[in-house]
Amino acid sequence: MNNHAPWFYAAALDESAAAVLLTEEEARHVMAARRLVVGDTVCVTNGRGLVACGVITSASNRPPEVAVSIAEIQKLPPGIPVHLASALPKGDRQKTMLDMATQAGMQIFTPLRCERSIAAPGKNAAERWQRVTIESSKQCRRAWLPEIRPEAALADFLDAQSSGAQLFLASADGVSVSDLPQAAMNQELVILVGPEGGFTSDELILIHGHCRGEVRLAPSVLRTETAAVLGVALLGQLSNRQ
Amino acid sequence: MNNHAPWFYAAALDESAAAVLLTEEEARHVMAARRLVVGDTVCVTNGRGLVACGVITSASNRPPEVAVSIAEIQKLPPGIPVHLASALPKGDRQKTMLDMATQAGMQIFTPLRCERSIAAPGKNAAERWQRVTIESSKQCRRAWLPEIRPEAALADFLDAQSSGAQLFLASADGVSVSDLPQAAMNQELVILVGPEGGFTSDELILIHGHCRGEVRLAPSVLRTETAAVLGVALLGQLSNRQ
Repeated sequence: MNNHAPWFYAAALDESAAAVLLTEEEARHVMAARRLVVGDTVCVTNGRGLVACGVITSASNRPPEVAVSIAEIQKLPPGIPVHLASALPKGDRQKTMLDMATQAGMQIFTPLRCERSIAAPGKNAAERWQRVTIESSKQCRRAWLPEIRPEAALADFLDAQSSGAQLFLASADGVSVSDLPQAAMNQELVILVGPEGGFTSDELILIHGHCRGEVRLAPSVLRTETAAVLGVALLGQLSNRQ
Repeated sequence: MNNHAPWFYAAALDESAAAVLLTEEEARHVMAARRLVVGDTVCVTNGRGLVACGVITSASNRPPEVAVSIAEIQKLPPGIPVHLASALPKGDRQKTMLDMATQAGMQIFTPLRCERSIAAPGKNAAERWQRVTIESSKQCRRAWLPEIRPEAALADFLDAQSSGAQLFLASADGVSVSDLPQAAMNQELVILVGPEGGFTSDELILIHGHCRGEVRLAPSVLRTETAAVLGVALLGQLSNRQ
């Protein structure tokens, strides 16, 4: 696998393909943003574990289309299932949160509706968020796109958790990540992050009935998006302890 | 100490003061952004450990001035000395890095000049960065402002390290934070973060002569600012292990 070639995204890539076509936004990204031309090497992922590397065989502007002949194709494992379940910060901070959490290893994202929530998913939010996670995945060479789930009310989210998942609460009263119980390989790890102002005491009672521990992410009060990003990174360290 | 009052910054606050005056930017922040009025409770820090809480006794617009009578004053300890020594990302990412690293517990910041550096400190960078760290410190109620040091060439930075400091390299080949050697209380912990494209092999040889371990922050390639923020958070967990 070429370690320096830039990555692109094509949902249509399949295991038996000899070539793959990049269209629209991805093709424009190849030509305009990265200024790549016929003969340059690129990697293409389908966001579900496949990565193909090869060279650009044609590139045209109208409509934007780039063809890549595949020299090598690999299926990569999904890695640690870290699930971020977080209240939404406002505006641009949503993008920062999803971008950095994707880099940090987030595999599932559920926006939580909490009593003190200050933001709800806007129109076309899932689509916008997916674009952010695609860009971040390309940048950090992830072969698995994070899964973006619909917004859930906190109580419904907690009720729907499978017994296999381990929930942790991001909390200033929590312990260091080294003091958390070890996670089994492939076990889903969920980090719960509240809105600015925190979860209410009623919400905390609910959460304590489901969660496996509280983790202290930093010495001081954190903004929602910072807690989300640090929470994903710290839970990712748990599964490294095998 | 009032846990809900907003925090403001006044370098001039001293231990024996009965009142403190907020001027210029801070006073405008009280009145325009937070819309606080005479009688409201606020906390004021000098960024060197002192925090005073009290009520606003006067507020005037021209020039912007807010007086606070002090009801309670505390001196807080500085916490874990986590030092971020990082190549600079470009443009707005510098602000994101310093904002989130401050929340995550960064106490010292040194911008590193590396062979593959893509950005240098712009004009008035130190001043701009200090404004960012002041805003973040207020937001996350930190009584100690991070110290911003001048840019240093990597080799000079490494040579100048005191024997007491422990350096760690952010690296995809590193170990999980739980597998790092424990840190003694109050020992300075330095996280080294390279530019996009990483440190060169010559730089890595230099670094290996000084560093105590390599820490893997996430499963994939990280942008500089993300590595910086996660590095600060993860080293902060080391000192929680006493």
